[in-house]
Amino acid sequence: MKAMTGACRAQAAKLTDVLQGRYADRTVTVQGMVHALHDMGGITFLLLRGPKGVLQCVLGPEMDLQGVSEECAVRVTGLPRSEPRAPGGVELTAQTLEILSRPAAPLPVPISKKRLDLNLDTELSLRPVVLRSARERSVFRIQEGLCRAFREILHSLDFTEVHTPKIVHAGAEGGSNIFRLDYFGRKAFLAQSPQFYKQMMVGAYERVFEIAPVFRAEKHSTPRHLNEYTSMDLEMGFIRSFEDLMEVETLFLQRAMELLREEYAGDVEALGIQLPDVKSVPCLRFDEAKRLAAEKYGRPIRDPYDLEPEEELNIGRYVLEELGSDFVFVTHYPSKKRPFYAMDDPADPRFTLSFDLLFRGMEVTTGGQRVHEYQAQVDKMLRRGMHPEEFESYLMIHKAGMPPHGGLGVGLERLTARLCGLENVRHACLFPRDLSRLEP
Amino acid sequence: MKAMTGACRAQAAKLTDVLQGRYADRTVTVQGMVHALHDMGGITFLLLRGPKGVLQCVLGPEMDLQGVSEECAVRVTGLPRSEPRAPGGVELTAQTLEILSRPAAPLPVPISKKRLDLNLDTELSLRPVVLRSARERSVFRIQEGLCRAFREILHSLDFTEVHTPKIVHAGAEGGSNIFRLDYFGRKAFLAQSPQFYKQMMVGAYERVFEIAPVFRAEKHSTPRHLNEYTSMDLEMGFIRSFEDLMEVETLFLQRAMELLREEYAGDVEALGIQLPDVKSVPCLRFDEAKRLAAEKYGRPIRDPYDLEPEEELNIGRYVLEELGSDFVFVTHYPSKKRPFYAMDDPADPRFTLSFDLLFRGMEVTTGGQRVHEYQAQVDKMLRRGMHPEEFESYLMIHKAGMPPHGGLGVGLERLTARLCGLENVRHACLFPRDLSRLEP
Repeated sequence: MKAMTGACRAQAAKLTDVLQGRYADRTVTVQGMVHALHDMGGITFLLLRGPKGVLQCVLGPEMDLQGVSEECAVRVTGLPRSEPRAPGGVELTAQTLEILSRPAAPLPVPISKKRLDLNLDTELSLRPVVLRSARERSVFRIQEGLCRAFREILHSLDFTEVHTPKIVHAGAEGGSNIFRLDYFGRKAFLAQSPQFYKQMMVGAYERVFEIAPVFRAEKHSTPRHLNEYTSMDLEMGFIRSFEDLMEVETLFLQRAMELLREEYAGDVEALGIQLPDVKSVPCLRFDEAKRLAAEKYGRPIRDPYDLEPEEELNIGRYVLEELGSDFVFVTHYPSKKRPFYAMDDPADPRFTLSFDLLFRGMEVTTGGQRVHEYQAQVDKMLRRGMHPEEFESYLMIHKAGMPPHGGLGVGLERLTARLCGLENVRHACLFPRDLSRLEP
Repeated sequence: MKAMTGACRAQAAKLTDVLQGRYADRTVTVQGMVHALHDMGGITFLLLRGPKGVLQCVLGPEMDLQGVSEECAVRVTGLPRSEPRAPGGVELTAQTLEILSRPAAPLPVPISKKRLDLNLDTELSLRPVVLRSARERSVFRIQEGLCRAFREILHSLDFTEVHTPKIVHAGAEGGSNIFRLDYFGRKAFLAQSPQFYKQMMVGAYERVFEIAPVFRAEKHSTPRHLNEYTSMDLEMGFIRSFEDLMEVETLFLQRAMELLREEYAGDVEALGIQLPDVKSVPCLRFDEAKRLAAEKYGRPIRDPYDLEPEEELNIGRYVLEELGSDFVFVTHYPSKKRPFYAMDDPADPRFTLSFDLLFRGMEVTTGGQRVHEYQAQVDKMLRRGMHPEEFESYLMIHKAGMPPHGGLGVGLERLTARLCGLENVRHACLFPRDLSRLEP
């Protein structure tokens, strides 16, 4: 009887191994998609696309190239050798080439070009093929690195990974920007954040995290907003102050930059990314940050309770020019702009023990300490005109006892976009959802 | 100016370090929730719950225990020493105890009992506090281990992690079991699987994976079904046959059991889990498996095209009794029961190059090779009465060229439930969604 044993019989060498010179001057078989094909009159250069990188193959005039075109899946056997002029520094002289599959039509865009320069709408409509270009592949590899760093650092700090529901009976953030759906005849919503659930899990595991989609039915179309995005969330018990959360986020940033430097160097270079220095991340109080930016750039403060996007940009500019930092924690947001579960500052309850992290002038994280005592939480809800009885399962944890705790959520696409220098957050989302876009 | 440097000043020792004897006979401060409190007349035993385990603390008659109760958050300083009779083998003699927070009411269930024996409905309603019990904590730690193993093995095989949208314009699985929502006045759906998107990403990265929620509006209430669950998906290009996918899944199972043995031994033991032997996983053809189980257990075959749950149980029983395996790959499912993207077997197109993995008689994975040629896919859709023009963005990848490829999806909760010996899959989901349950 047939049985599987986990013996993944290699049918071909890893392209990355070939690119790293592991097979120098030994005959090897590689496979991949034909990324580009250049007939130089007699010899042909074939760029073979693998999972991480492309390998230049040289095909002599004796090779039969009948039927070979871009985006054929091929298997090539030949001799690799060091060649400084080839992308990745290795070139393979092909001996045989086998076609595994063929496209049915030419590509709608020349994906092997360095920059496609499509307008955003065309690019997003053609995403399934545009993602085959080197630039796009690097963006989402960087994004993978950010997720890995988040999980790695939190795992090392004894956080437990959880999976919380996305179909919910009540929104955590309140307001109207929530998607509704029919759930077997009942009204249900799509989770705006895992807030309630991650707090519940603090009672069980003390420290938890989740990387998962969140949904916001925001009706504005800006380069900063997505209606579905990936949130990297953590929640942590036994904090002494919300500064503990900012320290954990700083550790994450440090690990992220280190990991990108170590394992994603090719993508970092391809995108021309300057990895920010995150040895230390300055903190500014909300009101102080507003004032400093207003004074330096002569822009009057219009709304003392919130940061306008242009103010965020100016604060980012300020910390870069004055403090040499790409990041800044803005702390003590006004209570009226924070949700009902935010803990007010005992020293001045108009403000909260909370923070945002701005990266090159854009908010990429919101976090803070939460109310952990039952009566304090019920009182705060009542002061806001809320009905605590509608939150019975949430308040169950406060009633049962909760340690002082807090957490944060990082917007993965915004962080990726800022890091990669992408002007529109849609460029940092594989298949973005916005007011007009539901496909692909 | 204040700045964060990632220096997470330890305010207390890690409970796991104390339990592992790292602080033997040195004064140490620990913190956690009061899991249980036993007054033995004079001295009091306090079980302190940390992220991973509980530590027994002994409080002498001189200690002031005013206000200390179960589910207080406390900080305890004292001297740990080896004590074989204590849970985890270490006991801490307390010198000081500080209360950080108090519950507002006693717990609705005695979570420190070994088994709660609640009925399912009560348990699920009280989940936010029931999850604080040792048993529940172990179940979801095991679940974390399964996710880690999946990511680890795939990362080592050059798979790239992706995040695909959950709000979609069309369902991948077809049928009526799909949730609908209003998307700014347009009709939209919740993704039944990342199928289309992970195939698209094979064109870009060759090998991809995603762990994310999927949504099924199935109207039946069984111990096997959830309306929202976590799917561990992978998709892989350049396969020679669908057996390559089964080999990768076998590697995953091997890594999972190894990781659970290495890093989750306490949870494995607490739940009494027998980690299955996965050195080799047998394969049986669909029709053969049906026949063998029918013959051995005398249950006539009623539907030659599908497996009834009882047949799955009998096949599981058969492979355990005859082959000594907890797992079995059932291959070559009938074409009419597989989706339009499944590749038919050229040797007999009534069957597909596909498989399910059964674990102790329950399907935990569905996978197979996909149609990769444009015309073949369009023809198959037309034969099924589908309208290819409705799938333009999906078919874009077939038109542009795709390598031979396939993939699979593992139901995380089912795998967890089967492994932990839980009869109902709801026990393996933190906050399950079913026909009647939307809260907590």
